[in-house]
Amino acid sequence: MVQIEQDILAKNNGYAAANRRYLEDRGILALNLVSSPGAGKTTLLARTITELKGELSMAVIEGDQETANDAERIRRTGVPAIQINTGKGCHLDGHMVGHAIDSLQPADRSVLFIENVGNLVCPAAFDLGEAHKVAILSVTEGEDKPIKYPDMFHAADLMIMNKVDLLPHLDFDVGACKDYARRVNPRIKILEVSATTGEGMAGWQAWIKATREAALAGLSDAKRSA
Amino acid sequence: MVQIEQDILAKNNGYAAANRRYLEDRGILALNLVSSPGAGKTTLLARTITELKGELSMAVIEGDQETANDAERIRRTGVPAIQINTGKGCHLDGHMVGHAIDSLQPADRSVLFIENVGNLVCPAAFDLGEAHKVAILSVTEGEDKPIKYPDMFHAADLMIMNKVDLLPHLDFDVGACKDYARRVNPRIKILEVSATTGEGMAGWQAWIKATREAALAGLSDAKRSA
Repeated sequence: MVQIEQDILAKNNGYAAANRRYLEDRGILALNLVSSPGAGKTTLLARTITELKGELSMAVIEGDQETANDAERIRRTGVPAIQINTGKGCHLDGHMVGHAIDSLQPADRSVLFIENVGNLVCPAAFDLGEAHKVAILSVTEGEDKPIKYPDMFHAADLMIMNKVDLLPHLDFDVGACKDYARRVNPRIKILEVSATTGEGMAGWQAWIKATREAALAGLSDAKRSA
Repeated sequence: MVQIEQDILAKNNGYAAANRRYLEDRGILALNLVSSPGAGKTTLLARTITELKGELSMAVIEGDQETANDAERIRRTGVPAIQINTGKGCHLDGHMVGHAIDSLQPADRSVLFIENVGNLVCPAAFDLGEAHKVAILSVTEGEDKPIKYPDMFHAADLMIMNKVDLLPHLDFDVGACKDYARRVNPRIKILEVSATTGEGMAGWQAWIKATREAALAGLSDAKRSA
């Protein structure tokens, strides 16, 4: 079993590395959004796109076991989106995402959001070629999730604590949640957001723009002007 | 890949069948609780046990990637519980549960709750030997989850719509959610519950007791008196 798992991951890593090279060469910032089902990834994305579309070029790859609802919802914001249905599969992989990038042809220097299948376990192990994993945790899920699903929060560079508008109705300890996240990943950055009310969206936008600038600064001059 | 998957599932089904035989022979009703992370499985279980422990003998198998928090929480209700940590694994399997049953030795004619790893995808394919899968959907996750994760809601006999106390603060269509669940599984039974306020707990308790009676009615006279 361990050998099979290593073979699958090694094969995936090959596809992911090719995706990463393609994206980096074109100055495309790819963010892999991971969370439990229903943590609010699509609502966050739709609002982010609506607020940023005057400033940035964006595209979206949507992953779900079934339905094309999320891609349709994103397309209504005016941004190109493609849906991957994984069927029995529990995560996106590098091969699927490579095909989606071929079809989608995201613009040079754009931001490519990849919304993974809602699953706090399996997507942690599958690199898609993204620059960063962003873990979205809904405060309705309880503050203990980072220590119960440590691989995901260890793999993420940013944790968005979403649905903070519901905090007054919940028994959720924000400080403990941050401590747990930092216990499994001392370098994780944390933002508190409500994609419904807009609270904290400015910080998330600022993070996207600064991260994109940092990625573009790493492009060679030849590639920048190409 | 398909062949490997079939081999793994066939092996699991063998362990699950042995568990089912063991449990049925002793009149033990095993319920496999499945959901997204943070849908409230442990809170529901703790309240259920506290309310039913004068009437029924119960035991719990807890599944999580890491931590023994849930088993400790259940033990504080005065009921035996054992924790399985799956590490990188995304679901419980028949083999793990067989070992846990050996250690736990649930009483004859008891109810054995198995709380799976929080994951709406992978546990759908892995039979543990349970009598029924019970899918818990938190209303904070949105009404579309049954059609986005159809395998799980197809595999479940009961869907508990949990956290209904939060409905006034959410944009969640209860009727649409029920329609979606019945679209993927026309025979699914649905209960609306809040494990926090206690709303709907009586219906869930009644379901457990009636299901247990039905299972005991199927025991042969020889086994009943043994």
